[in-house]
Amino acid sequence: MRRLVLVIEYMGTAYSGWQSQKHKNTVCDVLTEAIEKIVGEKITLFASGRTDLGVHALRQYAHFDTNSDILPFKLCLGVNTKLPYDIAVKECYEVDDTFDARKSAVSKTYLYKIYISPTHSPLRKFTHAQLYFPLNIDKMKQAAAYLVGEHDFTAFMATGGQTKTAVRTIFDVKISSIGDEIHFEVTGNGFLYNMVRIIVGTLVKVGQGKIPPQQVKQMLELKKRSLGGKTMPPEGLYLLKVRYPEKYLVK
Amino acid sequence: MRRLVLVIEYMGTAYSGWQSQKHKNTVCDVLTEAIEKIVGEKITLFASGRTDLGVHALRQYAHFDTNSDILPFKLCLGVNTKLPYDIAVKECYEVDDTFDARKSAVSKTYLYKIYISPTHSPLRKFTHAQLYFPLNIDKMKQAAAYLVGEHDFTAFMATGGQTKTAVRTIFDVKISSIGDEIHFEVTGNGFLYNMVRIIVGTLVKVGQGKIPPQQVKQMLELKKRSLGGKTMPPEGLYLLKVRYPEKYLVK
Repeated sequence: MRRLVLVIEYMGTAYSGWQSQKHKNTVCDVLTEAIEKIVGEKITLFASGRTDLGVHALRQYAHFDTNSDILPFKLCLGVNTKLPYDIAVKECYEVDDTFDARKSAVSKTYLYKIYISPTHSPLRKFTHAQLYFPLNIDKMKQAAAYLVGEHDFTAFMATGGQTKTAVRTIFDVKISSIGDEIHFEVTGNGFLYNMVRIIVGTLVKVGQGKIPPQQVKQMLELKKRSLGGKTMPPEGLYLLKVRYPEKYLVK
Repeated sequence: MRRLVLVIEYMGTAYSGWQSQKHKNTVCDVLTEAIEKIVGEKITLFASGRTDLGVHALRQYAHFDTNSDILPFKLCLGVNTKLPYDIAVKECYEVDDTFDARKSAVSKTYLYKIYISPTHSPLRKFTHAQLYFPLNIDKMKQAAAYLVGEHDFTAFMATGGQTKTAVRTIFDVKISSIGDEIHFEVTGNGFLYNMVRIIVGTLVKVGQGKIPPQQVKQMLELKKRSLGGKTMPPEGLYLLKVRYPEKYLVK
């Protein structure tokens, strides 16, 4: 039995998210079926984490066990011939069986893209959220600083999430203004249900001048979701990368 | 009678190019129909130039005459409600009747995006060309320098183009390496049929080390298309901007 890990890119627009669901078109199900055609046996895929309906991934990771002795690069090429255009296996590595795509992850980074314009963008319709008016970047950076560190993120979790504790560590929040776009990069050791989309929605509310940057601190302390901003839509969100311990040699 | 000019963004994937054609889905026809619904009369749209099947535009310009006294910003919002998601009017200005979207243009800039990877990119399938291997940027920059200036570009024209003369002036060719992408920006006073796609295809051949940078000079002198590279596919090409004399106040 060998364990293989895949690096996967997908455009989430056509899918009901990553996680396998009955009677739904999910990335996990489509990918599992493609892999099974190549390795000639049933497999079970374990991802670094779920992504929701419409959310994209540039470097999602998932592992599976197989009896096949196929070379990793041949698996990568073979599986791609069985996939629709909106899912691609970018890389494949063999790893020892202590590796787990979810449990071994040291950190995950999400990217959120917002296009700022009073009119919509045909070329960015499925890849960016849109806001009509500019945001105050400095205020958003001030607010984001309160998020960095270990906190109870109950105020940044959608109802419906299942978790023992809402304590997570955010390592970094980068905010960049690039032409008519604003990009947010959030890195943490784990994320709650809808957490990135609520973080960005709250930073947007700060950037619009509707709440002061300090309110983010209050949200954390009071654990009050209602003090924050809207949950941003899925089309602007990307799982950008996942970091693993160096011993696994998984880039 | 008033003359209005529109700035238009479109994703070209679903269209048989800009130019109106019988029994074809073209950007010009779809846009004309939407405008006619708002101004309540037949109009004729004149663009800065055609774009081919599958080619995108970030800022295409087109003018038309109308008896309607609708305010430009209201026309912009109204027309957008009548358009499919892949075409949008970004701006609208009133101009005097000496303005002509094609004839008044001082320069046009095209952008060409290439994604470099041995595996395809789901998120860039319709917006980038793809090449498997890295290109030598320095050699491409050397080659591009020969293109700048006034030249007879017969060697960079596809058959089927109709033009009195193949003499054009290229003002600038910018080549940038951005992560796993290479972007080409070509600015000139006018372009022949498929000219940008042949320029990029030829620079790619130089970047692959298959021909020396000096061969671009020879192509111009000998007017031999066969010395160059392939015509690159349409999905990587964007009409990025068009510049007009300042007196028209058209940004």
